[in-house]
Amino acid sequence: MRTPVHPSGGALRPLGLDEVRITGGYWGRRQQTNADATIGHCLHWLEKLGWIANFDRAATGAPFERAGREFSDSEIYKLAEAMAWEIGRTGSPELEAEFARLTERIAAAQEDDGYLNTMFGHPGQAPRYSDLEWGHELYCYGHLIQAGVARLRTRGEDAFTALARRVADHVCDAFGAGGIERICGHPEIEVALAELARATGETRYLEQARLFIERHGGRTLADAGEYYQDDMPVRAAEVLRGHAVRALYLSSGAIDVAVETGDEELFEAVRRQWHRALARRTHLTGGMGSQYQDEAFGRDFALPPDRAYSESCAGVAAVMTAWRLLLQTGDAAYADMIERVSWNVLAGAAAPDGTSFFYANPLHQRTADPDPAPDRELPHVQGGGRRAPWYDVSCCPTNLARTFAQYAIYLATADRQGIQIHQFAPCTIDTEVDGERFALAVATSYPDDGTVVVRVEANQGSERTVSLRVPVWAEGATVTGPDGETRPVAAGRAASVTAAFAPGDEIRLHLPVEPRWTMPDPRIDAVRGCAAVERGPVVLCAESVDLPGEADVAELTVDAAALPIERDGSVYVAAQVHDRDGDWPYGSPTAPDDEGKSAEVALVPFHRRATRGPASMRVWLPQS
Amino acid sequence: MRTPVHPSGGALRPLGLDEVRITGGYWGRRQQTNADATIGHCLHWLEKLGWIANFDRAATGAPFERAGREFSDSEIYKLAEAMAWEIGRTGSPELEAEFARLTERIAAAQEDDGYLNTMFGHPGQAPRYSDLEWGHELYCYGHLIQAGVARLRTRGEDAFTALARRVADHVCDAFGAGGIERICGHPEIEVALAELARATGETRYLEQARLFIERHGGRTLADAGEYYQDDMPVRAAEVLRGHAVRALYLSSGAIDVAVETGDEELFEAVRRQWHRALARRTHLTGGMGSQYQDEAFGRDFALPPDRAYSESCAGVAAVMTAWRLLLQTGDAAYADMIERVSWNVLAGAAAPDGTSFFYANPLHQRTADPDPAPDRELPHVQGGGRRAPWYDVSCCPTNLARTFAQYAIYLATADRQGIQIHQFAPCTIDTEVDGERFALAVATSYPDDGTVVVRVEANQGSERTVSLRVPVWAEGATVTGPDGETRPVAAGRAASVTAAFAPGDEIRLHLPVEPRWTMPDPRIDAVRGCAAVERGPVVLCAESVDLPGEADVAELTVDAAALPIERDGSVYVAAQVHDRDGDWPYGSPTAPDDEGKSAEVALVPFHRRATRGPASMRVWLPQS
Repeated sequence: MRTPVHPSGGALRPLGLDEVRITGGYWGRRQQTNADATIGHCLHWLEKLGWIANFDRAATGAPFERAGREFSDSEIYKLAEAMAWEIGRTGSPELEAEFARLTERIAAAQEDDGYLNTMFGHPGQAPRYSDLEWGHELYCYGHLIQAGVARLRTRGEDAFTALARRVADHVCDAFGAGGIERICGHPEIEVALAELARATGETRYLEQARLFIERHGGRTLADAGEYYQDDMPVRAAEVLRGHAVRALYLSSGAIDVAVETGDEELFEAVRRQWHRALARRTHLTGGMGSQYQDEAFGRDFALPPDRAYSESCAGVAAVMTAWRLLLQTGDAAYADMIERVSWNVLAGAAAPDGTSFFYANPLHQRTADPDPAPDRELPHVQGGGRRAPWYDVSCCPTNLARTFAQYAIYLATADRQGIQIHQFAPCTIDTEVDGERFALAVATSYPDDGTVVVRVEANQGSERTVSLRVPVWAEGATVTGPDGETRPVAAGRAASVTAAFAPGDEIRLHLPVEPRWTMPDPRIDAVRGCAAVERGPVVLCAESVDLPGEADVAELTVDAAALPIERDGSVYVAAQVHDRDGDWPYGSPTAPDDEGKSAEVALVPFHRRATRGPASMRVWLPQS
Repeated sequence: MRTPVHPSGGALRPLGLDEVRITGGYWGRRQQTNADATIGHCLHWLEKLGWIANFDRAATGAPFERAGREFSDSEIYKLAEAMAWEIGRTGSPELEAEFARLTERIAAAQEDDGYLNTMFGHPGQAPRYSDLEWGHELYCYGHLIQAGVARLRTRGEDAFTALARRVADHVCDAFGAGGIERICGHPEIEVALAELARATGETRYLEQARLFIERHGGRTLADAGEYYQDDMPVRAAEVLRGHAVRALYLSSGAIDVAVETGDEELFEAVRRQWHRALARRTHLTGGMGSQYQDEAFGRDFALPPDRAYSESCAGVAAVMTAWRLLLQTGDAAYADMIERVSWNVLAGAAAPDGTSFFYANPLHQRTADPDPAPDRELPHVQGGGRRAPWYDVSCCPTNLARTFAQYAIYLATADRQGIQIHQFAPCTIDTEVDGERFALAVATSYPDDGTVVVRVEANQGSERTVSLRVPVWAEGATVTGPDGETRPVAAGRAASVTAAFAPGDEIRLHLPVEPRWTMPDPRIDAVRGCAAVERGPVVLCAESVDLPGEADVAELTVDAAALPIERDGSVYVAAQVHDRDGDWPYGSPTAPDDEGKSAEVALVPFHRRATRGPASMRVWLPQS
């Protein structure tokens, strides 16, 4: 099964990259760009900075000057995973040869007992596992193992999977009961070991994943606390907290362990935390890591759009968690969130050409920043309004690359009755349902247009159900069956059509994607009195380049009583552009505000921001 | 002249601690608490942590383990300055003996060439001036010299002033033209040298201060930039930026140099920066350092109340700058700002008992934090909702102590025509105007009450003018002269009464201190849709302990259409307390909000916050 997550149970069955293929549209282009540009770009930077060469140097056994941060090994593994899925998708022989070369260099650095890390344990370095808080050794293993799973499921056993299994065996030996009974400061090993158990049938790996999950909250880390999710047991927490990527990787691993061990209490604990985080700690874009510091979830309703981290990697991790919740429960609300994060975090995190990236994805950019130099990495904490080619902490490019390469699998699932379509893109779906072939082709230019046409390509005459997600915002959706009858479908429910489909039968879903105003909860201080525009699943934003005289977005107010207007493929709102001044910015209620000049202002998709030169930008628009 | 700032020119003449005496009221109690508790508290902690003992150890010439951060010497000097002013105010022999003991310990560590610092240049330490960016050597000197000036002006030459002068001479030798032509990463030496020049008549010190000012922007620091105000020349900047305390100490020094050298361009540059910072980068409390990080001024209108640093020391520094601007220009608007900062930053930064302190003074506290332990210092970056006895970076206690000890001097000034009263507190003012004695006594319970009565105690029959500041918020103020006639005075103008006063004559100023709503500039995203209540000069806040059921302040909204009500000495606003819930905090414009339960909610002065147990708190109240 060419898919990253393959539970032994659950409401829905995932499909493989050989079963779902994206055939065009935004995500088709994104996959192509990923293959043509992003993977090579990452390889180039990993070589240029010496992060791959660390393996060559470690292999010599001699002391060496190591390049990069303590987690840089993981970037090579995430890229390997991207390459593995890409090879699984296209079978590219060039990429296969590249993968083999990379495998050789990694394997050369592995110790006899399976240990593999370029930062610890070599001459002149700190000893193995001497800094579990920040050493990231198990975190790096996790990404190595996830790449191994990708490889196992796309090409079977090879030199790479062998080294990944040796690492996993080493982890079980070193961190099992009676061993180092502690955790890694950055979760990731849990989700990886659980999936390796699924891919190999080795229950030892699942048990080790379970042990790591249960050890959280045991305060085995020196700086035990919320940041590492070591403040309380996973099953006791009420809400996602601390570092967002850590929290979501841990949640994903905990779900996998819960599903495979039948631990309903653990599953419900993670589900509860997810929902509470959505209700109080998530940005409109689906961005998690709400806070100005620590790349962390903040306090409830503390959601500053200018100081959001909303890290690209937290978007990847949120999709991982939501996908597992969807497979287990079958509840399409999780697919809604995957869509929100896909369009509004992942899509915009990489530039259209796939060679520059946002580390953080704040919803408000106060200044029109210039582009970073194309040949220098940027400090990740600096961030800013423009995408950079690489960062000192450069987790996003490779994380996006592996996600884009595998993206097709998020489009659909199957069960014993039929196929569920979760994400709308031109694609083919060709699988077996209850032992019989059932194939569909989806044609759509969604979300530009709200029509999705599903054509049955193959069915052996059995009665089947095709379910199409109707997003929670899609008030007024309709579905037309092969019988030509059109009926309304409630937003947030599935549009299900059951029939003994014949090839050529069509199901037509219409989703109202017209732009709409969205208002924030009154408890969100940072955006009180503002409104945002969404169009279908896409969050829009204003950029200063679209304002009269390229005025700063700080000078913009909008009239949310008037509906946004769509014309010639663009969205416009009635707005005022101000020119305000003053000596002291606080005054009596009777002091009049400058009324501003009326203007119709174009909004653009948030994911297409920062592609037209320096600009200030905001999603949440102050109301006039 | 027992006063910290004594320019050779300017519109107004400062008075000394022997000329203005606070006789009661809030500031009288604060000075008494400072003398009785705060100074001793600081001495206790400086001994306990070994920060004074550093001098004893340095004096031995042997290698030693040094306690505290690189700037800890400055705390001893700021405390010495507090003691010097306090001795100058009361003549306390106990404090004088304490001061002598401290002087001896400091002096023992001074090198033969005048160098004095416990962090550098001793065996095993980094060399002198090897880290101008972070070493703080000149910063520490600055505070030593300011203490020396206090001593010179209150007791004349002694062992302490001798060591301060030796330090100043050493600085001129080491950093003069042809020497180390660089600056210190933390301004302070400039303002100190300029004042020492005034106090001693040594123009060499003024010239050295001028050199330091002019070197700013020369990028002589390794991490040259905005944080250190090394990004551009002082005279070229448009707005205060970077670290707030640094910016304001530098501004104070630049004004002193500009005034003494007749450099109008430099003076106007600082004035321009100050006004721009007030218009766009200052919190309602007068708090500066608007930002979540670097203790720095943020972007224009980025004024998050929950992430304001609004550092206590920036309050001290803002008073220093405003006072210099007032003396030079005579414009009472600067005294308005001193009043705002005094009541809303300084007054609340120290607990009523004078033994615990806020490092930062944010206007919004989301969580009800417990009190810190009374015997342990707190990390200054942690902050939180409760005052701590001491911090790892503990600049605030001693800075507040020196400011409270000298506070009387900010109350009034003189010119050739009479006396200007800037701050209203029970006090006596006894000075010479145009060579003749002129003495006043002020009686008031301001700001609880808006009446200020000025009684003439001595006048030799000449015609004199008494000017009373009418704050910019005081719409409807009146003044009644000795002739019994009452006339209105415009807010933001002086109420001036000119007469050939006889002892016993009274001037009666009435200021309307009734509580009023204040609205923020619409460009301040963080408080859009909110209103605050001010009463006279005092900013009020809501604390959860005053809400029905001690509800979190996040659940509070107010009706700003109804005027705040004052009853039995308390201020109340019409409010709603909500109990809201939801799955996703963004929705359509038509979704109804929970209306909440109506309640009348008491507000308390911001400076009295956090004195009644753990509480969430907010100044800016969301409107219903």
